[in-house]
Amino acid sequence: MKDKFFNYIHDLQDTITSKLEAIDGKATFQEDLWKRPEGGGGRTRVIENGAVFEKGGVNISGVHGKLPESMQAYFGVKDADFFACGLSLVLHPKNPMVPTVHANWRYFEMYDQKGNIVDQWFGGGQDLTPYYLFEDDATHFHQTCKTACDKHHPEFYQNYKARCDDYFYNAHRNEGRGVGGLFFDYCKQTDAMNMQNWYDFVTEVGNSFLEAYVPIVEKRKGLDYTKAQRDWQEIRRGRYVEFNLVHDKGTLFGLKTNGRIESILMSLPPHVQWVYDHHPEKGSDEEKLINVLQNPIDWV
Amino acid sequence: MKDKFFNYIHDLQDTITSKLEAIDGKATFQEDLWKRPEGGGGRTRVIENGAVFEKGGVNISGVHGKLPESMQAYFGVKDADFFACGLSLVLHPKNPMVPTVHANWRYFEMYDQKGNIVDQWFGGGQDLTPYYLFEDDATHFHQTCKTACDKHHPEFYQNYKARCDDYFYNAHRNEGRGVGGLFFDYCKQTDAMNMQNWYDFVTEVGNSFLEAYVPIVEKRKGLDYTKAQRDWQEIRRGRYVEFNLVHDKGTLFGLKTNGRIESILMSLPPHVQWVYDHHPEKGSDEEKLINVLQNPIDWV
Repeated sequence: MKDKFFNYIHDLQDTITSKLEAIDGKATFQEDLWKRPEGGGGRTRVIENGAVFEKGGVNISGVHGKLPESMQAYFGVKDADFFACGLSLVLHPKNPMVPTVHANWRYFEMYDQKGNIVDQWFGGGQDLTPYYLFEDDATHFHQTCKTACDKHHPEFYQNYKARCDDYFYNAHRNEGRGVGGLFFDYCKQTDAMNMQNWYDFVTEVGNSFLEAYVPIVEKRKGLDYTKAQRDWQEIRRGRYVEFNLVHDKGTLFGLKTNGRIESILMSLPPHVQWVYDHHPEKGSDEEKLINVLQNPIDWV
Repeated sequence: MKDKFFNYIHDLQDTITSKLEAIDGKATFQEDLWKRPEGGGGRTRVIENGAVFEKGGVNISGVHGKLPESMQAYFGVKDADFFACGLSLVLHPKNPMVPTVHANWRYFEMYDQKGNIVDQWFGGGQDLTPYYLFEDDATHFHQTCKTACDKHHPEFYQNYKARCDDYFYNAHRNEGRGVGGLFFDYCKQTDAMNMQNWYDFVTEVGNSFLEAYVPIVEKRKGLDYTKAQRDWQEIRRGRYVEFNLVHDKGTLFGLKTNGRIESILMSLPPHVQWVYDHHPEKGSDEEKLINVLQNPIDWV
């Protein structure tokens, strides 16, 4: 399973970066191969200063070895070996009419002293963070997520949509990071779903990513925008930074377990603003976005 | 003691904001008075888009009531009443040749059920974060700190300088946030120092702030700078954000205990950049700064 899933994300990274380069038309991904001293490594691909993508990363990693002490307590186990691999991506478009997107699909195995698998699970999701709300876009993104989910379980979409809204939430601002999508974790063997079923589900979601996001980019990348709209985008990106550095478990885990810092923090936007006590005007498009972030909508 | 120290920071806020407005010559501080539903409140003063100060805040607060549950565990006590007051300031200058500065002076009291003081302490400090290193400036700042400390105890400067280097450290980057200054906390009654002695020390440091920082601003605010130097400042400001959101106990405490978000996050810089895997050129001024942040210097 671990080889099969690693091969999958390896190929998916190629598929996604090729497609994004074709859309951008100007910048290409810069690749960094890195090794983890304790075992494994990764292939980080970053795009910067493109015509469409101001900054983005599509990274894969596969790491293994002794479970770090900081993670032992987290998983409630002692000395154990582990394997973890995944694909993580974040794209920050230049045009404030194009939403930021984040996705991650991952697989984890834990072993006893003899090397037997004692636990294994999948996790991941994909979610959309607009600066200006086009309801059609949010509906398209969620509909694509739902179609992928529905092939595997009638309740997956509503469950994982709700978990996404819960997880990507800036509690200190009382607002969601974006308009959500899917979030799932600890997808383990059950009577209804064996690991192959979970593999089929997670790769179905992974395969749906370009279909969920690319049409939105194509539709919005040519729209005009003003300096004020660009400022709004940079202020909202500040909330993205706040979520990733204050609340996101994956980011904090990476920072505290000596992960590859540059691969983890590629998620941070290129240009960001913090303005004291900023509030959008009543009735404006900016206020409309905030209202939706404070009151998540059922998009499909 | 609590009234005396609150009056002190109240007056010091006026002294500092008047002086900073005079230096800026363009922008003035915008004042927000706020109340804490559970008891107390504050006076936040923020300056934005000045000729010298791109963004900054000089805030006082005095809060009291039942110790929030999240703080009970932190202080190792159960049901208790508390009073806390302090002045916090952060200034982000526009010109990358002028360093950012942060300072905080605070006082805390805890009470038993009958209202008797069961614990009380002072804390605080001041520290400098340059984008380009002028050694004279770092020496002047530290010398002013040392002169204030030496009037109260021969070991305060070296102890609190070392604690400042330890505290304002971006562990995930292996570098200090800046060139340090002073950091002290839990300054409680001892045989050598009663609370009045601590009050005298903390106010001595508070009174030294303008003397420590203003001459640096005056000396550097008129220097020319390039677009590349401004970009470097914005990239370094990203590290400031990373420290404040990932490591700073005060900020995280505020965010997790329902503090006034805008007063807490006024510390975040106005314009910030994150560039993937950015490294300064060998032998450049930018690299010289990094070397010093990785290897703290004894400035006096």
